[in-house]
Amino acid sequence: MSPSKYVYDFSEGNATMKPLLGGKGANLAEMTGLGIPVPPGFIVTTAACVYYSANGKYPDGLTEEIEAHLRALEKLTGKTLGDPAKPLLLSIRSGAVFSMPGMMDTVLNLGLNDETVEGLAKGTGNARFAYDSYRRFISMFGDVVMGVDPQAFEDALTAKKAEAGAALDTDLSADDLRDLTVRFKKILNERAGEQFPADPLKQLHMSVVAVFKSWDNHRAKVYRRTQGIPDDLGTAVNVQTMVFGNKGETSGTGVAFTRDPSTGENFFYGEFLMNAQGEDVVAGVRHPRPLEELRGVMPEALEELYAIRSTLEKHYRDMQDLEFTIEDTTLYMLQTRNGKRTAQAALRTAAEMVTEGLITKEEALLRVDPLQLDQLLHPRLDPKATYQVLATGLGASPGAAVGQAVFDADEAEERGSRGEAVILVRWETNPDDIHGLIQAQGVITSHGGMTSHAAVVARGMGKPCIAGAQDLKIDTEAKRFAVGDVIVNDGDWISMDGASGRVILGQAGLIPAAIDENVGTVLGWADSVRRLGVRTNADTPDDARKAREFGAEGIGLCRTEHMFMQEDRLPHVRNMIMAADTAERELHLAKLLPFQREDFDGIFRAMSGLPVTIRLLDPPLHEFLPNYTEVMVELERLRLTGASADAVAAQEKLTATVKSLAEANPMLGTRGCRLGIQWPEIYAMQVRAIVEAAADVLADTGEKPHVEIMIPLVGFEEELKRMRALTVETADAVLAERGVAIDYTVGTMIEVPRAALTADEIARQADFFSFGTNDLTQMTLGFSRDDAEGKFLTHYLRTDLLKSNPFEKLDQAGVGQLVAMAVQKGRSVKPQLKTGICGEHGGEPTSVKFCHRTGLNYVSCSPYRVPLARLAAAQAVLEEKASAKTGD
Amino acid sequence: MSPSKYVYDFSEGNATMKPLLGGKGANLAEMTGLGIPVPPGFIVTTAACVYYSANGKYPDGLTEEIEAHLRALEKLTGKTLGDPAKPLLLSIRSGAVFSMPGMMDTVLNLGLNDETVEGLAKGTGNARFAYDSYRRFISMFGDVVMGVDPQAFEDALTAKKAEAGAALDTDLSADDLRDLTVRFKKILNERAGEQFPADPLKQLHMSVVAVFKSWDNHRAKVYRRTQGIPDDLGTAVNVQTMVFGNKGETSGTGVAFTRDPSTGENFFYGEFLMNAQGEDVVAGVRHPRPLEELRGVMPEALEELYAIRSTLEKHYRDMQDLEFTIEDTTLYMLQTRNGKRTAQAALRTAAEMVTEGLITKEEALLRVDPLQLDQLLHPRLDPKATYQVLATGLGASPGAAVGQAVFDADEAEERGSRGEAVILVRWETNPDDIHGLIQAQGVITSHGGMTSHAAVVARGMGKPCIAGAQDLKIDTEAKRFAVGDVIVNDGDWISMDGASGRVILGQAGLIPAAIDENVGTVLGWADSVRRLGVRTNADTPDDARKAREFGAEGIGLCRTEHMFMQEDRLPHVRNMIMAADTAERELHLAKLLPFQREDFDGIFRAMSGLPVTIRLLDPPLHEFLPNYTEVMVELERLRLTGASADAVAAQEKLTATVKSLAEANPMLGTRGCRLGIQWPEIYAMQVRAIVEAAADVLADTGEKPHVEIMIPLVGFEEELKRMRALTVETADAVLAERGVAIDYTVGTMIEVPRAALTADEIARQADFFSFGTNDLTQMTLGFSRDDAEGKFLTHYLRTDLLKSNPFEKLDQAGVGQLVAMAVQKGRSVKPQLKTGICGEHGGEPTSVKFCHRTGLNYVSCSPYRVPLARLAAAQAVLEEKASAKTGD
Repeated sequence: MSPSKYVYDFSEGNATMKPLLGGKGANLAEMTGLGIPVPPGFIVTTAACVYYSANGKYPDGLTEEIEAHLRALEKLTGKTLGDPAKPLLLSIRSGAVFSMPGMMDTVLNLGLNDETVEGLAKGTGNARFAYDSYRRFISMFGDVVMGVDPQAFEDALTAKKAEAGAALDTDLSADDLRDLTVRFKKILNERAGEQFPADPLKQLHMSVVAVFKSWDNHRAKVYRRTQGIPDDLGTAVNVQTMVFGNKGETSGTGVAFTRDPSTGENFFYGEFLMNAQGEDVVAGVRHPRPLEELRGVMPEALEELYAIRSTLEKHYRDMQDLEFTIEDTTLYMLQTRNGKRTAQAALRTAAEMVTEGLITKEEALLRVDPLQLDQLLHPRLDPKATYQVLATGLGASPGAAVGQAVFDADEAEERGSRGEAVILVRWETNPDDIHGLIQAQGVITSHGGMTSHAAVVARGMGKPCIAGAQDLKIDTEAKRFAVGDVIVNDGDWISMDGASGRVILGQAGLIPAAIDENVGTVLGWADSVRRLGVRTNADTPDDARKAREFGAEGIGLCRTEHMFMQEDRLPHVRNMIMAADTAERELHLAKLLPFQREDFDGIFRAMSGLPVTIRLLDPPLHEFLPNYTEVMVELERLRLTGASADAVAAQEKLTATVKSLAEANPMLGTRGCRLGIQWPEIYAMQVRAIVEAAADVLADTGEKPHVEIMIPLVGFEEELKRMRALTVETADAVLAERGVAIDYTVGTMIEVPRAALTADEIARQADFFSFGTNDLTQMTLGFSRDDAEGKFLTHYLRTDLLKSNPFEKLDQAGVGQLVAMAVQKGRSVKPQLKTGICGEHGGEPTSVKFCHRTGLNYVSCSPYRVPLARLAAAQAVLEEKASAKTGD
Repeated sequence: MSPSKYVYDFSEGNATMKPLLGGKGANLAEMTGLGIPVPPGFIVTTAACVYYSANGKYPDGLTEEIEAHLRALEKLTGKTLGDPAKPLLLSIRSGAVFSMPGMMDTVLNLGLNDETVEGLAKGTGNARFAYDSYRRFISMFGDVVMGVDPQAFEDALTAKKAEAGAALDTDLSADDLRDLTVRFKKILNERAGEQFPADPLKQLHMSVVAVFKSWDNHRAKVYRRTQGIPDDLGTAVNVQTMVFGNKGETSGTGVAFTRDPSTGENFFYGEFLMNAQGEDVVAGVRHPRPLEELRGVMPEALEELYAIRSTLEKHYRDMQDLEFTIEDTTLYMLQTRNGKRTAQAALRTAAEMVTEGLITKEEALLRVDPLQLDQLLHPRLDPKATYQVLATGLGASPGAAVGQAVFDADEAEERGSRGEAVILVRWETNPDDIHGLIQAQGVITSHGGMTSHAAVVARGMGKPCIAGAQDLKIDTEAKRFAVGDVIVNDGDWISMDGASGRVILGQAGLIPAAIDENVGTVLGWADSVRRLGVRTNADTPDDARKAREFGAEGIGLCRTEHMFMQEDRLPHVRNMIMAADTAERELHLAKLLPFQREDFDGIFRAMSGLPVTIRLLDPPLHEFLPNYTEVMVELERLRLTGASADAVAAQEKLTATVKSLAEANPMLGTRGCRLGIQWPEIYAMQVRAIVEAAADVLADTGEKPHVEIMIPLVGFEEELKRMRALTVETADAVLAERGVAIDYTVGTMIEVPRAALTADEIARQADFFSFGTNDLTQMTLGFSRDDAEGKFLTHYLRTDLLKSNPFEKLDQAGVGQLVAMAVQKGRSVKPQLKTGICGEHGGEPTSVKFCHRTGLNYVSCSPYRVPLARLAAAQAVLEEKASAKTGD
């Protein structure tokens, strides 16, 4: 194979060649090889696109190669590009390595001009069809290749329909359509500032270049960023003989999934439209019909589709997303690919395919995107609540959401990124709306079907979607919709259930989800594969119980500050802080002791038999006091409004305390073990409460709690040495008082960069390390989360400076390097050192996999992320095996 | 030599055995070897002390070893411990590896009891001497070994003197002193709660243990911390035959320096007291006489001292600090060690010893402590100013200081550590005052001489000291002193000149010091040895010029924010910040441009021919606005006091802006390049101003400034890539406009841990790295400097959790690890990458040496630290050579 080969015939490729041929092209080649009817064609490779991106021109020889393959195609089909007698017509479609539905550009019916259109009309005996194809080609070419706003063509079409008194496009006559082609060309020539190219070969090369360029358009970039697809892969271009679903009532087009992409049910799920081209179905412009209805229209085609469905599922061993066209009763397949699916569908499909013997358990585990599990565990509508259902559309992507209605993707992005809950309401969505979808809680459209753009994208993102809610009369200009008498304005609260398709007025009550059978099955397999432990971050017995239901194997982080914040404790906490000396402080701490003991008692019982890591007090003390600005303003108010001297004096005392504790950068101030070192009595009280609670639980239940005491914010070995000594002294004193023996360990959070850098020293004092990657990220990157998100970090993400939010996805190059270093250094002095992660990253799949690769013992995450972590941990094992095999 | 050898006779050791024998013991052994008269004795090693510290008991065999050496000593001297006929008397002195003057304990006259004292009286025919020695022994033993407050003995002595009508101790008769021994024993037995041990062997072992324990006393620990002496070295114990300077008028004692420790002049400098023991001189209780006066009293002894001075200086090749005693006209040397000296003396001695051929230039460079240079460059009294001199004492340690008088070491420590300028005024000082001296600007005593404790310690620390200012009548209780009619109360301002000994009322004017001849000589040698470049941190032409005088080879950090803060610019800066959009912001930036250009113009001229690194704007924008709490309080005030609606509205607008920019942790917020990335127009203005100024200077002087533009707070390669592109685009545009070519480089601060961790990526975009170790320390340790110092960091230092302040001395284990990693990674992709440090550590000797070892190209420090850095950089080279030789 010559290194300069940039073009492959479908018959030359196969499904393994995706990196070079793109997903669509490789699968068209594969189907061709399987003997499935595919219109013939060839593929311009991704390598050509990469060259074009870098150099702004074709690589040497590409023009000739394309034209040689064109000649071969002409020979095969007996038609010739530009031949008025037997014109060859082509479709030009992008095809990237990873599916990017609707993100890039397509040109259909290429090869038409004023002469070939006549030849097409004669050859088919269908002038209406010929001119319909021609007007479609001009507008697509104008939009995609020449950059003309497609609305101009839409407006001309609408005007023509009005003139002709036509209700639907299909009501237009051949003459109407011929006239429309003239108008379209005029629009194109005027708007583009250059002439529509009549030369079909010129059309072809211009279209190939347009597809190359579409790789770098804004919406494609945004999509790639959200999906983590690299920017340097390029897209292939598929040049394929046109087949026509719009040739009349014996022609049609459709899309199908080999199983239900919403529920996973093993049911042939699809939609079709007669006398239409494929874009009509996907764009949701007309309402498509369920696939089964094809039986009444063209039963043989349906039977053939069923056979192809079976062939493809067995061949690909995964649920497929198909596109087909019927031209004059002959079925052609235009695409197959692995179908996007909801979490529920992913799990059901995976589990059932194992039962069917189609795939192994390991393959099933790799089929499910861990992030999707998250949506399964998201709240759903409270079935016991009552609410006003405004309308019911198609349940296109399950899940419940509550948000304020917004009618514009930009606004959805802006408000959503500020943390506001919004639901995007649109007539239909198109790829330009993607940034709004990302930031919305869910999306509702009044048009389009289950396979419309909004539905496909929402399912991919695990967001609720209701499509085709036709009762919603949307006025985009006025930013409102009406359902009968009810008007919902921009900013009004609505709720939605993406499973049942119900659109609800106001804020509906939501309840937590539970794990269903398929989830349980797949997670059971995950547990048998994974090595990484999965714990939870829980501060209350309720959270602990919930997490245990979800499979948590212990508590990796129990924060004690939330306990201090509760209403009945806060006065004691404040008195403790404002104490004049140690003796007074101990007095107030003694009042807090019973509360703390009770907290731990409940948690130990909920986690019976499993380890519980309790972090001693971490936040700066001023967090328990009122805000400095507020107390100063209040003081000014008291002074100016003639308050009593006593009131002013009391406020002055409070102000003085608040001021003395105020910090310029509290994140880097007196917190964590710095509290325990200066006021050991605080930590001593907490340790006493922990160990007394453990002794109580032992006495009551006969079971010993597994106690792990964690010292936060250690940066120097000596800090941990002192706090460890205090902990051991206090704990052993309690155990001696109670006359019981309970094992406990003492470890530390690794959250200060220095702790990671000197982990070999710190490990000498630690039974375990728990990586606090939230703070470690803040300090390693110099990003205060409070000040970054919504400010410079948002700017960085929007302008592509960062690919992902480092507070969500662990920054492996920076923070991850410190984690790996700390594990290695820690184990160099203490080989059995237990290590875990308790930052939010413990519930994010790429970060969980990093933790596995780095050799941590466990991850700890919020209760609802536990299933996700279990699955990701299993996938990490399987990916490791796979890369060991391929030697990656 | 058996591994269990814990005791060495003086004749067995030499000066190279300091780690084992301690400094004093090793030098006594060395002098013994040189044939200099040293009272015979033996040394219990530091290894025995280390064992004792760890185990709380003697190592096996030590008791027997000590007693065997004792027998040998008895044989040598013909006297026996405890023998009433010919009693052997011993001195027991500590002797650590590094000199810790007065920090640890000493017991003299050991071996006396009610029987041996009679023998001593008979043997010497001097009952008065015998009982004087006995009462001294009881009180010292009581204090040092049995923990009795020495004031109790002082009070008894005072009472006795009153009863006897004696003015001086020497006026007391033998009977008076005998009576005093009875009283002293009674005091000891009562206060210690156990009996004074009459058994001299028991006295000996108890004293050895007391010296061991004194290694871990509080003042010794504090001293070690300030001097950077490790805690695990232990002290040796010197057991030596007593010689008596208090045997009458043909006996005496003294201390001497082979050169003047204050000025370095080659002059035999010392003091003596007749009929006294050594402690009397050091403690400053009696006023000693200048050494030269010994010629009139005992000329032979003085001649012998001169000969010994010469022998020892040649032998040790350094200025020596000597202790001697004359017993009945016979001279004995009790100690020699390298003498502590002022910076001025260190430099003069080093330079002159090179001229004298005594040492090499390299040795001279290693003789001067770089930290001492700092004091040389500290301000001195303005000779043109007039001031009221209250009194003149001994100029015991040079330098000028201004501060509030304080009369208590604890108070000096407390106020000094808060950053207040205080001068400690004491009758005399003792080792317990060390913590107060550390935090004071200087110290004045009304008693004691040039070799008193205060003087020695102050010279070591480079702090001004005036000793023996007898006109000051100090009332410690009332916290004030009087000089004639003038009363100076606690907190009143005074000034002092430690060179001339003048005590001045009020705040005297100070002027900067300049570099003198000896400094210039030694620094010239340093420059010829060092490889590390030395630059300065300077924001103004004045600072730049001063630093250049001190030898700076360029500017390593020119901060631009100080320029923004100036009164004539701040309104434009505020308008710029509050601008509604980019266009308006650019309008205000255009007004700032001429100011910035002018700033850079002056700096380029001052640094003509040398590189200038300019850091673009770094601090968060809210630093240029009023404080949030203040604007809120003002708003409340305006509202409550019925201000006009306009005034309230204006304040509300300001409040809103301040609030929108307020940050929870500004250190980790929108600052550094995060400003330039979000508002590129700010950095573009600065780059334009820099390059326009460079072009102006070139046009005017014909010399091209060496411009280095530095982007702060980079953590990700992409940040620097974008800011570099902006810089290059702007700079090249200006150069094109001006039609000139000026080279410039673009680099970055490494101050975010992630930048160090990913330095191989960042180096791709950088011409240089400058380590901002202030911020790097803050983030790596999680220490906000504002919130740490005076709060938890002070606590850490006081409680020995940290040995040094990481903002002063680079934390090599943590922060240094990142620096080394960044240099290595950066050079792995760009071998010629220029690297420097511009944090405050660039002016701290151990940190400068670290920078040399790590391979940095330069350090940059404040102008006054430039000489220090030059010397430390040379020492780093010499130390590297030495360790290469020894294979360390």
